[in-house]
Amino acid sequence: MEPQAAARSVFYVSDGTGITAETLGHSLLTQFEGVRFKQARIPFVDTPEKAHAVIRRIEDAGRSDGARPIVFTTLVNPELAQMVHAADALCLSFIETFVAPMEAELGVQSTHTVGRSHGSIDTSDYKNRIEAINYTLAHDDGVTDRDLETADVILVGVSRCGKTPTSLYLAMQFGLKAANFPLIPEDFDRGRLPGSLEKHRGKLFGLTIQPERLAQIREERRPNSRYASLENCRNEVREAEKMMKREGIRWLDSSTKSIEEISTTVMQEVRLDNRVF
Amino acid sequence: MEPQAAARSVFYVSDGTGITAETLGHSLLTQFEGVRFKQARIPFVDTPEKAHAVIRRIEDAGRSDGARPIVFTTLVNPELAQMVHAADALCLSFIETFVAPMEAELGVQSTHTVGRSHGSIDTSDYKNRIEAINYTLAHDDGVTDRDLETADVILVGVSRCGKTPTSLYLAMQFGLKAANFPLIPEDFDRGRLPGSLEKHRGKLFGLTIQPERLAQIREERRPNSRYASLENCRNEVREAEKMMKREGIRWLDSSTKSIEEISTTVMQEVRLDNRVF
Repeated sequence: MEPQAAARSVFYVSDGTGITAETLGHSLLTQFEGVRFKQARIPFVDTPEKAHAVIRRIEDAGRSDGARPIVFTTLVNPELAQMVHAADALCLSFIETFVAPMEAELGVQSTHTVGRSHGSIDTSDYKNRIEAINYTLAHDDGVTDRDLETADVILVGVSRCGKTPTSLYLAMQFGLKAANFPLIPEDFDRGRLPGSLEKHRGKLFGLTIQPERLAQIREERRPNSRYASLENCRNEVREAEKMMKREGIRWLDSSTKSIEEISTTVMQEVRLDNRVF
Repeated sequence: MEPQAAARSVFYVSDGTGITAETLGHSLLTQFEGVRFKQARIPFVDTPEKAHAVIRRIEDAGRSDGARPIVFTTLVNPELAQMVHAADALCLSFIETFVAPMEAELGVQSTHTVGRSHGSIDTSDYKNRIEAINYTLAHDDGVTDRDLETADVILVGVSRCGKTPTSLYLAMQFGLKAANFPLIPEDFDRGRLPGSLEKHRGKLFGLTIQPERLAQIREERRPNSRYASLENCRNEVREAEKMMKREGIRWLDSSTKSIEEISTTVMQEVRLDNRVF
C-alpha cells in the first residue's frame, strides 16, 4: 500500500462570519479530487491581536502538516488582510483581489467597511426575511389557508417530497413567503386540488420525486408502513403528477437536486423575483 | 439638483445556482458607497447556447446603461467561463482566478467539474441537513422535550428574541440539530429553568434582546397587548438575564446581529463543530 498523503490544512478567515469564504472555498476544494483537506472556519477576526493568533494557528498547522496551509479570506480591513497575507501559507483573498479592478472600473474608492454583507440588521431586507420565516412556518404542510393571497409561492406535492426544506430556504435566503400544501390520497380521489388553492393557481409550483427515493425517505420515518411502501409511493407520485399535468402546474423532480437548486428553479419558473432570470 | 448617475448593471452568472456568486458579489458592492447597482442573478448557465444568451443580455444592459456592466461568475467550465469573459463587461471570476494558484500549490490539476458545491445530494452531509431541519422543526418553541439528548444545541430566551430563525439557520446551513425553549413568566416565578433542560445544561445557549426592540417586534404581532408593552418586555428580559446568569448559561444579545452572526457565535461558544474555532 502506498502511504497516504497527509491532509492539507485549509482555513477560512473573516472579519465577519466567514460563511461566504467557507462556501466559495469549499467549491474550489471540490475541484481537486483525491486531495484530502482539514478545514477550519475562523470568524470575527477583527483586531490585530486576533489576526496574530490566527497566523500562529495557520503556521503551527503548516509545520505539523509539513505543507503550507491554504487560507481563504474575506477580510475587508486592509491592515488585517495584509497581516494574514504575510503568514507562511497560500493566502487567497476573495475581497482584496477584486476590490482594485472594481475601483478602477467604477472610478470610486472602496470604503473598506467590515461586515456589511450579513451585518446590517435594521434594513428592510432583514425584516422581510424574519417575516417570511414566520409566514412560512405558519403555512407549512397546509396547516392553514389564511392569508394565501400574500404568499409569493405555494409549493404542492406528495408528503416528504421536499416541500418544507425548500419553503424554509426560500424564506431564509430570499425573504420569500413560501406556503406549502401536501397532495394527499383524498385529493386524488376527488380528482381536484385542495379547494383553497384554486384561486392561487399562478403561484403554485409542484415538487415530485422518484418513488424509490420517496419510499426510502418515508421508511425512515414510518418503517414497514403502507405509507412508506414502494407500491403506495408509486401510486401517489403517479396520481400527483397526473393532477399537476391536468391542472397546468409547473413542476420539478427534486430527487437529485439540492435545496438550493430546487429553490433557484422555483424562483426562475414562478418569476418570483427580478433578481433571477 | 445634480442629475443622478444611472445605476450600473451587475450580473451574477453561474453554472450552478449563482447563490455564492451573489453573496460574495453583494459584499463587494457594499464596499462602494454612493454607487447604485441593478443586480440580476443568472443561474444554470451550463451550455454554450445559454452562455451566448447571457452575453447578449450583458451587452444589451451595457448599451442601455451607457457603462460596462460588472459580471461576477462562478462558472467552473473553462469553455463557458472564457466565452463570458469575452463579453464587453468587467468580468470577475471567483473560481477561475483561484484555481491556477491552487493547482500550483497542490501540484494537482483541477477537475473543472460543475456544481459540486450545492449539487451532491446523496452525501451524508445532505441527509444530515434534512434530518436537522426536521429535528429543529419538531423541537421549536419548547413543543417537546423528547430526544433532547440528540440535540446539538438548545437555545433559550424570552418569546420573540430570535430563537426560531437562529435554530433553523443552524439546521439548514450546518446540519445542526437545534432545539429551542422559551423562558416564560412561569419559569421566572418558579425561579428555575424548565425541568427538562436541567440535564442538558452543557448544550444550553441563551439569546437576549434589548427590551425596546423586543417591544417593537411583539407590538407587530399583538398590538396594544400587555405581552408587547415595554414595561413587560423590560421585566421579562431582566428576569431572563438574571436566570441565565444564575444558571451559568452563556448568552448573546441578538438585537443588532444578523441570523448568520448569531449562529456563528453560538457555534463558537458551544464549540459545536470543529470547523469553527
